[in-house]
Amino acid sequence: MELLLLLLLPLIFISTAAHSLPLFLPRAAQSLISKSNKYPNLPYIAHYFPQELDHFAYRRRSYGVFYQKYLLNSTFWERGEPIFVYTGNEGDIEWFAANTGFMMDIAPKFRALLVFIEHRYYGVSKPFGEESFKSAENLGYLNSAQALADYAVLIRSLKQNLSAESSPVVVFGGSYGGMLAAWFRLKYPQIAIGALSSSAPILQFDDITPWSSFYDATSQDYKDESMNCFAVIKKGWDELMWFSMKNGLSELSKLFRTCENLHSVYEARNWLWEAFVYSAMVDYPVEANFIRQLPANPVQKMCRIIDGFPPEVDILTKVFSAASLYYNYSGSQSCFDIGHEADSHGLSVWNWQACTEMVMPMTCSNESMFPPSAYDYEQFADQCMMTFGVRPRPHWITTEYGGHNIKQVLSRFGSNIIFSNGMRDPWSRGGVLENISSTIVAIVTQKGAHHLDFRSATKEDPTWLIEQRKEEVEIIKSWIDRYKGDEMI
Amino acid sequence: MELLLLLLLPLIFISTAAHSLPLFLPRAAQSLISKSNKYPNLPYIAHYFPQELDHFAYRRRSYGVFYQKYLLNSTFWERGEPIFVYTGNEGDIEWFAANTGFMMDIAPKFRALLVFIEHRYYGVSKPFGEESFKSAENLGYLNSAQALADYAVLIRSLKQNLSAESSPVVVFGGSYGGMLAAWFRLKYPQIAIGALSSSAPILQFDDITPWSSFYDATSQDYKDESMNCFAVIKKGWDELMWFSMKNGLSELSKLFRTCENLHSVYEARNWLWEAFVYSAMVDYPVEANFIRQLPANPVQKMCRIIDGFPPEVDILTKVFSAASLYYNYSGSQSCFDIGHEADSHGLSVWNWQACTEMVMPMTCSNESMFPPSAYDYEQFADQCMMTFGVRPRPHWITTEYGGHNIKQVLSRFGSNIIFSNGMRDPWSRGGVLENISSTIVAIVTQKGAHHLDFRSATKEDPTWLIEQRKEEVEIIKSWIDRYKGDEMI
Repeated sequence: MELLLLLLLPLIFISTAAHSLPLFLPRAAQSLISKSNKYPNLPYIAHYFPQELDHFAYRRRSYGVFYQKYLLNSTFWERGEPIFVYTGNEGDIEWFAANTGFMMDIAPKFRALLVFIEHRYYGVSKPFGEESFKSAENLGYLNSAQALADYAVLIRSLKQNLSAESSPVVVFGGSYGGMLAAWFRLKYPQIAIGALSSSAPILQFDDITPWSSFYDATSQDYKDESMNCFAVIKKGWDELMWFSMKNGLSELSKLFRTCENLHSVYEARNWLWEAFVYSAMVDYPVEANFIRQLPANPVQKMCRIIDGFPPEVDILTKVFSAASLYYNYSGSQSCFDIGHEADSHGLSVWNWQACTEMVMPMTCSNESMFPPSAYDYEQFADQCMMTFGVRPRPHWITTEYGGHNIKQVLSRFGSNIIFSNGMRDPWSRGGVLENISSTIVAIVTQKGAHHLDFRSATKEDPTWLIEQRKEEVEIIKSWIDRYKGDEMI
Repeated sequence: MELLLLLLLPLIFISTAAHSLPLFLPRAAQSLISKSNKYPNLPYIAHYFPQELDHFAYRRRSYGVFYQKYLLNSTFWERGEPIFVYTGNEGDIEWFAANTGFMMDIAPKFRALLVFIEHRYYGVSKPFGEESFKSAENLGYLNSAQALADYAVLIRSLKQNLSAESSPVVVFGGSYGGMLAAWFRLKYPQIAIGALSSSAPILQFDDITPWSSFYDATSQDYKDESMNCFAVIKKGWDELMWFSMKNGLSELSKLFRTCENLHSVYEARNWLWEAFVYSAMVDYPVEANFIRQLPANPVQKMCRIIDGFPPEVDILTKVFSAASLYYNYSGSQSCFDIGHEADSHGLSVWNWQACTEMVMPMTCSNESMFPPSAYDYEQFADQCMMTFGVRPRPHWITTEYGGHNIKQVLSRFGSNIIFSNGMRDPWSRGGVLENISSTIVAIVTQKGAHHLDFRSATKEDPTWLIEQRKEEVEIIKSWIDRYKGDEMI
């Protein structure tokens, strides 16, 4: 039970406590991906790089090298032309390659080499193999600074091996990968000439962004569709508790069409929570399969389901039906595996990151469609200590990467970063939404969602999305042109 | 004997091998400083900060906190006004405070708080106390990235405790401390608004600067005084070997007035070597006591000693007499402790840094006044492995901090760094000697030496030194004024 508190929607089990970070990548999706053998037609060749386990300490002998996976596509590359590197985030690298078609789309125009580097401890890049998650000792090297150093070392080596020293490197990343891309440009300007950082909530730490913003923004997405939809979901949480108390888990299991009986009402609650939060995150204007196969504008579709019921239909049926769209858009599932993954999983490795440095305080305000909750750091820290034996360093990210007064700090420091955000994405509120300088710029789309710009172009793309990508391409081109001009100096 | 290869003048024992890094701070001086109880009148109050041992890995429980010493002087400080931080280097912090009077001199003008932070593993800031140098396991956390993170964490905490969040921080550092100051500004712009990096050879790594430059520059200092002086010293090394072979160590000991008999001719050789190299480094235009008490223009004085002998006097007497000035300017020593320190010391902790990341290849060219030697990386690495059980990471510094194509990389990235160098200092050749941008600038003085600008003003200071310090003050003032202006935005 304690373990669960740290999983996907931590602390919602404790009615008075705060909500901590929902994973960028929901656990359910993680398991989907690792189960399937996924992307057979992905146009990349996998390589493995012998990487230092610990860049910031030295130990005896050759202790501590692991194999880091990276993907290459050199179809369009010409020597001297750019190298586009995706700074991998919390998942296996094929998944990000498959969902970042943008880089492949623009590669021919730039004659660019494409590189996707897997983040340490994810996918197959596990330093201690199957033992990687066993203990704090083994997990200790999982953090952003080590990941950035991995990218630096790997890119430098790759350029040397390809005799590509003069090729400018541009880094790309979405979500946590977008944080890494932006931080990489800031920490390693000698290696990357610029960064496209998509949907990266680098200001979601400490007290920089209001703690309620994430769930307020989620709620706003539903409000924007209909006030009834918002109100029904808001009422749903209490209804769920009442129904469960009144009718028992067995009846609730029937109502939620679970494959096996629920063990706890919180399994159902988590299931709904995930559906509403992640649909907002991936509220794309086109059909897509990022976390799951979903129709265009899933939030609108869910609200239409809710609003389509006659008023007298009970609230739980409405919210269940809406959530079903998220879990069963294809209609192929006859029952739902609710709560099942939670039992079958060991430690979720993102939770380690959330319990050490990626501490993003979150609350649910009264105005949100979620049950109000405060943020109790001490309780969170105690849970981390109990689960992993470590205490978080809640101010480390802002010490190491900044964030406070970002405009003042970066207006005369650094260059060549695009922060792109879609305002349908609740994470956008922790992003950089205003230009910082003439070369550190924000691109904000009102109707965009979580790193939508990174997806492959489709025939259904709205004009504003086409324009956004065009703007990004032009800015990146200007960096490369300037770099080539500077070479002549 | 193997150990000695890593000490002050490594590898000169091997006639065919390369010279590695002479320590910034010679071992002899280290022992002098740690023996005396030094600076009773230093106007600073010592504090101790509980610091993370490892900023880049997480371990169970509260494992790994040590006490880091720092010195404060708030005599001139007014809230909201700047904080000047010295980023400590390889020695105890009082020593740097005593030799960086410049900061005290300018504090009243800026109404600045002065902070000197001791570098981990030096002085009393030893994470494992007396055991700190015992093993690679204990030494492992001694590196520049950890040191920079120490400074970031400590400064942030200090500002919070003093309610000084709005005070701009400027970092100062000389030599290795100057590297740290420059790198700190580059890596932690959110914490320091600018850096004065004095005599910092950040380009002495990899293949950026010609490997022979250090000893060529040393030789040039002597050539500039007199060609005879240069030629005598150049001949001295062979003479030393011949004399020792012909007459034995006992006679050599007499000639060199050693307190105890020499154990090896290399003890005498090292002794001379140190005198000629460090006199060039600290070839100040005023009397000073940085490494030792020395007269103004010590290189000139040494050459006058050499040139003052009738030509028929033997070469060894000449070079010995010149070196005696370095070791015995006060005239108080009746005999010399040559080779004594080398036996009494355990591991020298800078050697750990030189054997891990601070790998600065050096050679002696035929044109230098030193015996020609190549650089044999493999031999060096083997020595490191034998001594510490670790292999160097020779490309790490340039991966982590850059250096190659520095003008191209930083001309559009970063701001507010002064690189100051005095060309009498052999380290200057590995420094930044040209402006990189309008705000990353080089200040070069032809007659300056190793972070001369950081010393207290004296009545004897030449005009060009007074002007240099004035220019530095004006630039720092412009950073602070601009920062205050930006606050208003």
